[in-house]
Amino acid sequence: MSVLIKNALILTQDKNRRKIKGDIYIDGNLIREVSENPIDVEADFKIDGRKKVVIPGLINTHTHIPMTLLRGYGDDMILEDWLQTRIWPVEAKLDRNAISAGTDLGLLEMILTGTTCFADMYFFEDVIGERAKKAGIRAFLGFSFLDFGTPEYKFDELFSRCESFVKRWRKDDLVTPTIAPHSTYTCSPETLEKCAEISEEYNLLIQTHCSETQHEVHDVWRKYKARPVEQFKRTGILNNRAILAHCGWITKGEVREIARAGASVSHNPVSNMKLATGGFMPLPELLKEGATVSLGTDGAASNNTLDMFESMKFAALLHKHHRWDPCVANAQEILDMATIEGAKALHIDNKVGSIEEGKIADLVIIDFDKPNLTPCFDPVSHVVYACRSRDVYATIVDGKVLMIDGKLFTLDKDRVIERANKEAERLTGEPLCSI
Amino acid sequence: MSVLIKNALILTQDKNRRKIKGDIYIDGNLIREVSENPIDVEADFKIDGRKKVVIPGLINTHTHIPMTLLRGYGDDMILEDWLQTRIWPVEAKLDRNAISAGTDLGLLEMILTGTTCFADMYFFEDVIGERAKKAGIRAFLGFSFLDFGTPEYKFDELFSRCESFVKRWRKDDLVTPTIAPHSTYTCSPETLEKCAEISEEYNLLIQTHCSETQHEVHDVWRKYKARPVEQFKRTGILNNRAILAHCGWITKGEVREIARAGASVSHNPVSNMKLATGGFMPLPELLKEGATVSLGTDGAASNNTLDMFESMKFAALLHKHHRWDPCVANAQEILDMATIEGAKALHIDNKVGSIEEGKIADLVIIDFDKPNLTPCFDPVSHVVYACRSRDVYATIVDGKVLMIDGKLFTLDKDRVIERANKEAERLTGEPLCSI
Repeated sequence: MSVLIKNALILTQDKNRRKIKGDIYIDGNLIREVSENPIDVEADFKIDGRKKVVIPGLINTHTHIPMTLLRGYGDDMILEDWLQTRIWPVEAKLDRNAISAGTDLGLLEMILTGTTCFADMYFFEDVIGERAKKAGIRAFLGFSFLDFGTPEYKFDELFSRCESFVKRWRKDDLVTPTIAPHSTYTCSPETLEKCAEISEEYNLLIQTHCSETQHEVHDVWRKYKARPVEQFKRTGILNNRAILAHCGWITKGEVREIARAGASVSHNPVSNMKLATGGFMPLPELLKEGATVSLGTDGAASNNTLDMFESMKFAALLHKHHRWDPCVANAQEILDMATIEGAKALHIDNKVGSIEEGKIADLVIIDFDKPNLTPCFDPVSHVVYACRSRDVYATIVDGKVLMIDGKLFTLDKDRVIERANKEAERLTGEPLCSI
Repeated sequence: MSVLIKNALILTQDKNRRKIKGDIYIDGNLIREVSENPIDVEADFKIDGRKKVVIPGLINTHTHIPMTLLRGYGDDMILEDWLQTRIWPVEAKLDRNAISAGTDLGLLEMILTGTTCFADMYFFEDVIGERAKKAGIRAFLGFSFLDFGTPEYKFDELFSRCESFVKRWRKDDLVTPTIAPHSTYTCSPETLEKCAEISEEYNLLIQTHCSETQHEVHDVWRKYKARPVEQFKRTGILNNRAILAHCGWITKGEVREIARAGASVSHNPVSNMKLATGGFMPLPELLKEGATVSLGTDGAASNNTLDMFESMKFAALLHKHHRWDPCVANAQEILDMATIEGAKALHIDNKVGSIEEGKIADLVIIDFDKPNLTPCFDPVSHVVYACRSRDVYATIVDGKVLMIDGKLFTLDKDRVIERANKEAERLTGEPLCSI
């Protein structure tokens, strides 16, 4: 497939030429040309880019995609109650059908809202891989480790199942397997060490939760006389393949450890605020130390969306508010977190995350002909502070147009919604609201 | 005009029957019938309510609508720099054309995103009144007082001009005049007292800024040996007609004073966080004391939108985060703030703010057939946590359909955007980004 975008404003996220008014030519899955001069070639898809802004596809580095089925299933609740009475009982009943339905629902939402790549850690990741591939989206799928086993496998099976999972997907173009020890409070040092070994052996990224709550930090300290970051260091997890989600309760010393190890942090402001996990992720300190900080939505059960535009605005405003300093977390830094820094965290910044000739075409086209985007002095400001996810006009992944002007090419909206409703009702055993 | 909405889920915000699956019949500007049984009458507009949720129109109790022209004109800046180098120099050049263009842009955004009523305080409010009336939206327009005069009038003229303004609009159905002494740091005690007298004489609501920044509180204390709330009390402003915007820096004693006086607070979480004004609005304390707390966006220059759905989510999450308590600011409380509590603040809760027979039809219909609103266990949760403003399917004010399915009846989108761009460029003297 070839795609030609004409006369658009392009926010390249390429530091050498940030803003271009011109054309983009995509052939196969690659960006062949980005030019201020008219590109005149034939293409299967010709897109009028006038009054539109092109940005690199948004990269969501922490989610649990099938949890879309539990969107709004429990709100305004104490974290422990929420987990024990709402989430865990339902997760214990998860099966392939539920996972498949919830994944499709999340993929539908992501494609409509400009996410082109996501990192997931949950259960039945094989199913998630199959659905992501079918939908045509880029996915980094973490095989989960928990000492008490998962809804899919008993603990004893996990290591061999993980190796099969990795072998199945490691050569795939769109789906990349990763390893996901859940956290320092749910995985023993031995489990973490074994995960670190597998990561080393297969060169796998590591996804994990780190210092999301104060309770977790205390628990881990009581058990191991180490805070979570130290525990990750001791067990070989803290290296440049690790993506640490949350980090709401880390010290300045831990900031330096993370940066020094080349590990990255996935910031999830909406989920952290909604669950009221307290603390704060020390964004300016992490950036100052040169750490990679990317952006995630977390699962829809605690967000309650997978909307990366919303997460960008929350991230920017949360840190300004926290520091009583409006200069913190400026629009450019936040857009970086949602694009090129996400690509760095996933070790694919040589392939995606910016709009450059030779890179893979993971792009989002935003319709700027909207009252909320009028007038436009600075398009980067608008993308972060004024854009709504519904302003996304087209989503392109791996050179393929997955959605344009509301039209979807790989998913059937009505079918996905109907199936998700059915599975959510079956899974929870609770009737949905009749609408 | 008559409107019949069939088979919708209705979130009435009427405590006696919160949720109804059924029909709404609107005749003239009134809700004639709300029923679980089919209403079979002829109507000019018949709306299929299946897979849709009806809520009372959203009420934005603090904005400066023409500032849409300065959307994204200065971000990530220290408040004083932002005001002195970006906002004030431009405001000094305001004229009727700019105000008219900026107002239409704001009205367009509000109608598309489900706001049916707003309280404004700015300059050239006569022009804003004319535009609001033409667009068909409900408006409470505050005639501004500043000791150094306004871009429209010299200080000496303000009192007589204000009386003319009040006399012009006081009998209008849609536009209600109010008086808006800017704040305790820009209005002398004499000015505040005079405003209080005019408010008393004409029974006008009072809009003002209160304790937005720590700096302001210190300044007022230094000058008058009173904090802003005390200063309002001394000068006769603090009564049940007063709407105090922000209140980010008020004490528990001031919370009690506000509640006792029957004054209300307009909470502006997005603007406060973006400008990093610090402090926090003590929501649980205000609610406990029985104060009316409503919701506002503030001007688009500091938000950068007029999106009340976004403000609802920010309000809910900000307070959970601040208190490390996810039970604070629950979805129902937040929806109340954006509807019935807004109506109370404006003294029109006997007319709008809930969906009840005999009340005026200010309604919003939301399309719930969306991935981000699937599945639906609790529609109130979805309205606050998962709805995007673009899910608004129809906006009805005073019984008239102003927008349905993207079609606008009182504003021409292309014309409004074109004119706003032109006026923004003229006003700021800076070229817009070429898109």
